[in-house]
Amino acid sequence: MECISAIATANGTGGVAIIRISGEKALDIAGAMFSPMPKEVEPNRMYAGHISGDGFADYGFMVFFAAPRSFTGENTVEIHCHGGVHIARGILKKTILLGARPAERGEFTRRAFLNGKLSLASAEGMADMINAESSALLRAGSMLYSERLTREVGEIQNKLKYILASVDAEIDYPEEDEGDIDLQKIQRELREVLKSVNALSKGYSCGKMIKNGVTVAICGKPNAGKSSLLNALLGYDRAIVSPEAGTTRDVLEGAIELNGVKFNLIDTAGIRAGATGAESEGIARARAAVRSADVTLFVTEGGEEPPKEYGGKLITVFNKCDISAPERGYDAVISALTGEGIEELKRLLVEAAGGEQALDKAYLVEERHYLALMRAQGALSDACATAQKTADLLAVDIKEAWDALGEITGETASEEVIAEIFSKFCVGK
Amino acid sequence: MECISAIATANGTGGVAIIRISGEKALDIAGAMFSPMPKEVEPNRMYAGHISGDGFADYGFMVFFAAPRSFTGENTVEIHCHGGVHIARGILKKTILLGARPAERGEFTRRAFLNGKLSLASAEGMADMINAESSALLRAGSMLYSERLTREVGEIQNKLKYILASVDAEIDYPEEDEGDIDLQKIQRELREVLKSVNALSKGYSCGKMIKNGVTVAICGKPNAGKSSLLNALLGYDRAIVSPEAGTTRDVLEGAIELNGVKFNLIDTAGIRAGATGAESEGIARARAAVRSADVTLFVTEGGEEPPKEYGGKLITVFNKCDISAPERGYDAVISALTGEGIEELKRLLVEAAGGEQALDKAYLVEERHYLALMRAQGALSDACATAQKTADLLAVDIKEAWDALGEITGETASEEVIAEIFSKFCVGK
Repeated sequence: MECISAIATANGTGGVAIIRISGEKALDIAGAMFSPMPKEVEPNRMYAGHISGDGFADYGFMVFFAAPRSFTGENTVEIHCHGGVHIARGILKKTILLGARPAERGEFTRRAFLNGKLSLASAEGMADMINAESSALLRAGSMLYSERLTREVGEIQNKLKYILASVDAEIDYPEEDEGDIDLQKIQRELREVLKSVNALSKGYSCGKMIKNGVTVAICGKPNAGKSSLLNALLGYDRAIVSPEAGTTRDVLEGAIELNGVKFNLIDTAGIRAGATGAESEGIARARAAVRSADVTLFVTEGGEEPPKEYGGKLITVFNKCDISAPERGYDAVISALTGEGIEELKRLLVEAAGGEQALDKAYLVEERHYLALMRAQGALSDACATAQKTADLLAVDIKEAWDALGEITGETASEEVIAEIFSKFCVGK
Repeated sequence: MECISAIATANGTGGVAIIRISGEKALDIAGAMFSPMPKEVEPNRMYAGHISGDGFADYGFMVFFAAPRSFTGENTVEIHCHGGVHIARGILKKTILLGARPAERGEFTRRAFLNGKLSLASAEGMADMINAESSALLRAGSMLYSERLTREVGEIQNKLKYILASVDAEIDYPEEDEGDIDLQKIQRELREVLKSVNALSKGYSCGKMIKNGVTVAICGKPNAGKSSLLNALLGYDRAIVSPEAGTTRDVLEGAIELNGVKFNLIDTAGIRAGATGAESEGIARARAAVRSADVTLFVTEGGEEPPKEYGGKLITVFNKCDISAPERGYDAVISALTGEGIEELKRLLVEAAGGEQALDKAYLVEERHYLALMRAQGALSDACATAQKTADLLAVDIKEAWDALGEITGETASEEVIAEIFSKFCVGK
């Protein structure tokens, strides 16, 4: 393969930067810009020496990873230089002058995938790890990256392969044994597989929130203390709090991390009759935010009913407990002013998002994986129905389920899907 | 020494990040978070394995540099992980939990300096390289880093040591030979040394411009085409050009790189009589800018004299040569409108800044080094004067010169100077 080259470390000023070269002639390029070059380069050993950049010299390290025992699976050289922007770019330029081509986004990882070093899901997990803005996504990405999903999907695929063999046998030699019994057995096995796929896909309700954050809509009558609650949760004055009803006209946002997961808090405009102009527009937006939320916090001073329409799980919150006592049962009794009950409310939020344990274990964070599981589910449901009647068309459905699962690992993913995934990577990865 | 730890690569998202741990127990810390840990860790070898961060796992490399053959001179471990902000921070946190202390700015390099791995001037050259915004500063930093200045200063110091020995002999055994002849010889030798120091310090006229950029003031009558010239040099429309006199009321700035050196262009307000308000303030600022410039471009349509007061070298520029011909000799004849003569003007700018060759070779870019050379010059001048009379006080002057030079390499630099230098480094270097 053609040699590609890129700065592998983050763009900016630091102590060290790495320029990575991958391709058959990587070592030749390194040899032309690094000295002293050992006669026999031992793989994985860091050699110290002079690096010539474009118009200057640096002192650093050269390390060679021999194919196939490298990240890309190709011959790879890393040059470790001092971490200045001009230094790294000048050394990259030198590799280009010596015959390497600037790598495209995700091209190293794409080559690793094409060389069978990791699955598509693992590559996506790696990207999730790198781009993670919350520790939950980092954890989930690291599970994906370690091929955990690939292994589970692979087991399901193996079962399908086994069932497919029975179906083929049934079609080819229907006379060999009692056809009906085999069909029943196949149907039973298919139901088991469908159950596994269902169980796997359920993780996405948590996973989606890990990836995108949990949207929490704070709603309630004007002046119930929604903005104060937002501020109490955030720990600083994000919303302007005023005792005059109808102050909040916008869908304000702030984010907190609970159990490593990002919770996006939305303070909805006080929904009240007779509002006009900018305020009524704010109310329309607030209604929409409440409907699409993952969790809805209904804040009240007592004496009202929670909204009939809301998104996700509802948590009823009695506020201002420092002034009066709740007249009946609420999920949480708090005082946004004094901070009483806020920690318990945070616990309820984590619970509403699936609970600590579920969030710790979820790794189905990619919508692409979820949609592939949905397609597999559809095909398997069809297969179960077909199996009640005849074996003849079963193979098509099973094959379809197998293919859908293969999109997750990459075995059956189209060129376009693969290209799109890697185009979202950074250059140098 | 206590173990210190930091992210050594630039802050941000990339393919790879490096966490560096330095100190006696570096390998113990690495062993507690990396697996499989080889029983015998071979220095300079990159081992692949699992890295445990704070609450997640990554897969990457661990490499050990054994004291004293490491950057700091201490036992050092580098952990190479995926280049996400959360990943690198999570792994750094793990090293802290395992007993390392977060490194201060420049602490790795400071330890390297204290362990005799590089001179102070070399450390400063490294910082220049890392922070270089122009290729000339990168080049100069790389020369400094490779101990070029340290070697030259060291040679001068050796000569001074040799002279000092003669002086001591002269004082201790004045009867042994003809005193006057020896004093003359010592004076001759001191003059030679002074010449070397002078020659070295001259490089700073270029070096200063490499470090700070060359300030070019573009001045001339209103409407002579100063803004147009600025734009022609920059290659884009930085200044608003208008045919109405007095448009430019501010000291506008833009920068170009010529021969790797940054040239900061200043378009001065049209200096004219009768200007009021904001315009007259602009004129005062323009006069100040012209006085402190490294190069002054005087732009005219002909028929005027250049300013009497100006900074640095003056280049007279006849503009609008597409409309009329110059009535007499000018350094440059151009048309900012058509671009005619602009390349030649750029050549003149490089020439005015010291010329291509001087800029390519200059590495005395640090004011601190220049000031130390100035102190050495002063002490050596005193010594030359003293040597005409008596040997008795000579030793003090020579010692003072030696000490001044030692500040460059760091031998005689005070704790405060050293602390100040490293406080300007980045964390992780």
